[in-house]
Amino acid sequence: MHRFALIGAGFIGGVHAQNLAAHPDVDFALVYDIDHARARQVTDRHNAGATTSLDEAFDRDHIDAVLVASSTDTHAAHLRQAAKSGMPVLCEKPIDLDLDRAVEVVRQVTEANVPAMVDFNRRFDRDYAELRRTVAAGDVGAVQLIQMTSRGPSLPPLEYIAVSGGQMRDQAVHFFDLARWTAGEDPVEVFATGSALTDPRLRDYDDVDTSATTLRLPSGALLQIDCTRQIRYGYDERIEVLGSDGLLEARRHRAGAVSRYVGDRVVDDGLHTTWFERVSASYGAALGHFVDALQNGSPIGPNLAEALKAQAIAEAATLSLRSGQMEPVKYPA
Amino acid sequence: MHRFALIGAGFIGGVHAQNLAAHPDVDFALVYDIDHARARQVTDRHNAGATTSLDEAFDRDHIDAVLVASSTDTHAAHLRQAAKSGMPVLCEKPIDLDLDRAVEVVRQVTEANVPAMVDFNRRFDRDYAELRRTVAAGDVGAVQLIQMTSRGPSLPPLEYIAVSGGQMRDQAVHFFDLARWTAGEDPVEVFATGSALTDPRLRDYDDVDTSATTLRLPSGALLQIDCTRQIRYGYDERIEVLGSDGLLEARRHRAGAVSRYVGDRVVDDGLHTTWFERVSASYGAALGHFVDALQNGSPIGPNLAEALKAQAIAEAATLSLRSGQMEPVKYPA
Amino acid sequence: MHRFALIGAGFIGGVHAQNLAAHPDVDFALVYDIDHARARQVTDRHNAGATTSLDEAFDRDHIDAVLVASSTDTHAAHLRQAAKSGMPVLCEKPIDLDLDRAVEVVRQVTEANVPAMVDFNRRFDRDYAELRRTVAAGDVGAVQLIQMTSRGPSLPPLEYIAVSGGQMRDQAVHFFDLARWTAGEDPVEVFATGSALTDPRLRDYDDVDTSATTLRLPSGALLQIDCTRQIRYGYDERIEVLGSDGLLEARRHRAGAVSRYVGDRVVDDGLHTTWFERVSASYGAALGHFVDALQNGSPIGPNLAEALKAQAIAEAATLSLRSGQMEPVKYPA
Amino acid sequence: MHRFALIGAGFIGGVHAQNLAAHPDVDFALVYDIDHARARQVTDRHNAGATTSLDEAFDRDHIDAVLVASSTDTHAAHLRQAAKSGMPVLCEKPIDLDLDRAVEVVRQVTEANVPAMVDFNRRFDRDYAELRRTVAAGDVGAVQLIQMTSRGPSLPPLEYIAVSGGQMRDQAVHFFDLARWTAGEDPVEVFATGSALTDPRLRDYDDVDTSATTLRLPSGALLQIDCTRQIRYGYDERIEVLGSDGLLEARRHRAGAVSRYVGDRVVDDGLHTTWFERVSASYGAALGHFVDALQNGSPIGPNLAEALKAQAIAEAATLSLRSGQMEPVKYPA
Repeated sequence: MHRFALIGAGFIGGVHAQNLAAHPDVDFALVYDIDHARARQVTDRHNAGATTSLDEAFDRDHIDAVLVASSTDTHAAHLRQAAKSGMPVLCEKPIDLDLDRAVEVVRQVTEANVPAMVDFNRRFDRDYAELRRTVAAGDVGAVQLIQMTSRGPSLPPLEYIAVSGGQMRDQAVHFFDLARWTAGEDPVEVFATGSALTDPRLRDYDDVDTSATTLRLPSGALLQIDCTRQIRYGYDERIEVLGSDGLLEARRHRAGAVSRYVGDRVVDDGLHTTWFERVSASYGAALGHFVDALQNGSPIGPNLAEALKAQAIAEAATLSLRSGQMEPVKYPA
Repeated sequence: MHRFALIGAGFIGGVHAQNLAAHPDVDFALVYDIDHARARQVTDRHNAGATTSLDEAFDRDHIDAVLVASSTDTHAAHLRQAAKSGMPVLCEKPIDLDLDRAVEVVRQVTEANVPAMVDFNRRFDRDYAELRRTVAAGDVGAVQLIQMTSRGPSLPPLEYIAVSGGQMRDQAVHFFDLARWTAGEDPVEVFATGSALTDPRLRDYDDVDTSATTLRLPSGALLQIDCTRQIRYGYDERIEVLGSDGLLEARRHRAGAVSRYVGDRVVDDGLHTTWFERVSASYGAALGHFVDALQNGSPIGPNLAEALKAQAIAEAATLSLRSGQMEPVKYPA
Repeated sequence: MHRFALIGAGFIGGVHAQNLAAHPDVDFALVYDIDHARARQVTDRHNAGATTSLDEAFDRDHIDAVLVASSTDTHAAHLRQAAKSGMPVLCEKPIDLDLDRAVEVVRQVTEANVPAMVDFNRRFDRDYAELRRTVAAGDVGAVQLIQMTSRGPSLPPLEYIAVSGGQMRDQAVHFFDLARWTAGEDPVEVFATGSALTDPRLRDYDDVDTSATTLRLPSGALLQIDCTRQIRYGYDERIEVLGSDGLLEARRHRAGAVSRYVGDRVVDDGLHTTWFERVSASYGAALGHFVDALQNGSPIGPNLAEALKAQAIAEAATLSLRSGQMEPVKYPA
Repeated sequence: MHRFALIGAGFIGGVHAQNLAAHPDVDFALVYDIDHARARQVTDRHNAGATTSLDEAFDRDHIDAVLVASSTDTHAAHLRQAAKSGMPVLCEKPIDLDLDRAVEVVRQVTEANVPAMVDFNRRFDRDYAELRRTVAAGDVGAVQLIQMTSRGPSLPPLEYIAVSGGQMRDQAVHFFDLARWTAGEDPVEVFATGSALTDPRLRDYDDVDTSATTLRLPSGALLQIDCTRQIRYGYDERIEVLGSDGLLEARRHRAGAVSRYVGDRVVDDGLHTTWFERVSASYGAALGHFVDALQNGSPIGPNLAEALKAQAIAEAATLSLRSGQMEPVKYPA
């Protein structure tokens, strides 16, 4: 049994709490949130303990691993404390929106030799994992072209936009990670262009809601990602991988499987309403992977170095959004 | 080049005329219709000759094959004349609605040793042919269960109903032929039940518009057919074959491939509006098969003996509709 | 909070245990199983209490509702004890394989005025519930034809077959319940025919593994059900409802959404491997419905009287399997 | 009846010949090909006349319209002769690979006031036409993002590549035309990047076989096109239009509708093997449009000015392939 402390009891903290409570090899020991009442709500639901002291969460005598689900600007500090206390840590993305600061934190955690994982949970989505497995097995030959679609149901609140780092660092970064992981190559160049089509105030934040991004891989393979913040037909993501021997597609998910044949149309159940319905299962699977790694010392999925790479791509894409030209991706040494 | 005479210049005659005109190895020589003006319209369109004498159509000096597409009650007479004149013949179904008379006609044609085919055109539908090929190749193992769906867009006129022989002999018979052909076995028993749901006047003709028919094959395999005359979503047919090693399905066809994602629904293009859009290609393929057989002496697809078997099943099904019990199928000796 | 006792800690008892533990308004108090060790395993996992006395489960001072998931031959006794003790009860199907005994038990529970539900969980499947809602709302007009498919991945052990009551009472009965519920009418006649195709030893039990059943409804609408015990492509169920204004279909479920385009084929993820993956969510939803009914006094979904009706159809279908003719359905008075 | 002369009797000339022969309002009068024997083969098949004099094809006393399907480098000359003789003309794309020369030719034809159309036949594909109609009707709101996929089954011969103008001018240009036409806006900027992945010799021609192109529209809407020359799963094209109110998709076409459920996979019929199977119907529809325009004086679909615009986009895209940055599209004045 691994004793876990959870830091952060907001929406995504609540999701992690449920998975921690359900995992057979996890002892869900502690919850910390800057809002003590919110922490208490979570512990009440799951029979865990709440604490008002962050240090308790990093006390290696009573805790075996920390799950960081607090706000973005606190991730770096928690990761540093994990390094100091030698505490294994599973952290929500990003490490830090400032790439230099992120690099420095990763250096500290790496030197401390602490098992650490960034929660790019989509890697644990059943379909994306199957896609990657099939590509890695060589079943579609050499990767030539990848198409990724990431479309959210509604524009996040502007307060969120303000601290998000922009569409590339906040939304596309998930797919930058999937891209590297699926293709098995690190993109060398990136081009991005975007528009603010749903809310002109995005421009005040130098941000966009609709973007088209193109990546070049060392092999010459290409990758297109379209990201939109707000669509009117639910939550939509899909991935297509064209290889020299065939095509793979992780199709859109539907919320149900009922068809209505009326007149000259067939009306099917549409997509999930929210992103959470689509990807919720992957959070539990990601936690499972982390716990397995702790138990067996097996390699950790998206480790900090990999997360840095995804951030580096997002950085170059953000630059390209402004420059209007292909930008080289500069990976941290 | 095979010189063809066409008998019958109604709707289906017009379809055959177009296929005769387009076939590279066919010389579309002659059209006869009891309505001379109607024959003339067809010949004008396709540069063929019209005749007002039926005998010309059966003149072996100038004609190599006759295609019979006239009204049902004339089929037997034309087939007999083909037997007498030694003329190869491709005839629309049925041979004759009266099974005894049909048996007698088949005897005559068979004795005359004339190449003859009944136009159960669905055997030449690309998907159904693929289904049968796959079953025959043993790719899904032994057939255990077949489900067939045959649904028309609208009730035919009552005048047609009056001379159609009823839903089993007119509509289901196509699928009785497909059933035998696909399963590779002759059904031994049949149960049918039906209702007149769209127009109560059907009962005046002792007919139904909605029926559920079950066949038993000698191997113990079962077959369900649902037939309806009038649906509100186009023209619908599909077939499913469950074998001991897997399932095969010839899916519904759609009129187009456009999807509209709006709100929580996905709206796709629906089915074809009419039966003709769905199966038109199979008429040309059936003609091609017949011409090939004439050229190469290869076996003829649905020959008269096979057509009789399909009629025998329809006969037993019609009986079951009234008796409410499983009836044995009595095949002509 | 409703205090629940669970009777039966086998596979399906384990499923119920998990749902009881997760339900926010349920206090999962007690587990009883004739095999005490097995009960203990379940309670250990979920922090519930185990008991070796059946009476404790029916003690109204400490328990608010009982969930019966023990073996079929014990259902009647537990339902009688629920009647005697005035205990609300959610019982796995069937009430009792002997229809007369089932009728008698239902009489007792009804007289005791105890809230009681039979767990025909498929009613709570998202897609089937949507189907029924749409039909009930009149969105496809009057029901004319229903097609149901129920196909299991493998033949149950013969020991199970021996006590199952046969394919109609054990497998088809779920769909007889769905049929009534979806159509909003009680079938009046039934025809069934079947074969033992996967294991000839089924004949020793007078049972079949492959059957085609046809129901007639008072309106003249028809219903076809094909049931097979063993297919080679996973677990398969689907329902189609043809109405006078359109068609509804609850399609097959797939285990994933990955497509592989290779050569001239597209290879998609197939069906779930087991029935449980397909319908597991419906167990939780059924429990939710029962708890809601307890809380609000709202009407209970498949109540005992409805369960008896489904059994009556299964009874007539079993008779038809032998008689080879349409049999009237005799509903208990 | 419109008397048509066909110039060019190669593969695509043969396709046009068949459509000319089948069109009820067309008198298929004449065929000219630089290879007289080849012209003769086509006229033999369709009962048209062959000529060895190009002038006969432009003789307004005997011909009402010319269809130009000869090699690319002859288009400009034939268009000029049409202008001189006042002959309506339907011309295969492109006008001329040299944009300046194309502009000059269009000026001459326009001044001659001759009805002229460039055969961007995909506009007449049933699904793409439906897509455009739906967008134009405002049914998905304002266009925000378009995704187009164009993937051929095999690399054309290098001799063809050598005179093709490169992937943008030869392959992508069809989709540049569809893009403008569907979006209802003229792209202002384009970015393209590409690789030679299937045959390194493409680099000798400064060409690519795999490309990712991004267009920006004046409204800020974005458009992504991926083009590949050689895939291993048939011929693949599809289009997706994301609007502010929903998503439209013209899906991939399948060559058949048979599904095979075996083990844990469902194997469906794949895509067409060749591009021609996928789009052949659109050639007839394009001809129909042109004949209608001649008869009714209705506006002509892709006229020369529109074709020039598509070429201008291809020109800018070709430039971007080399520059690695967004290039402005310069439309001819």
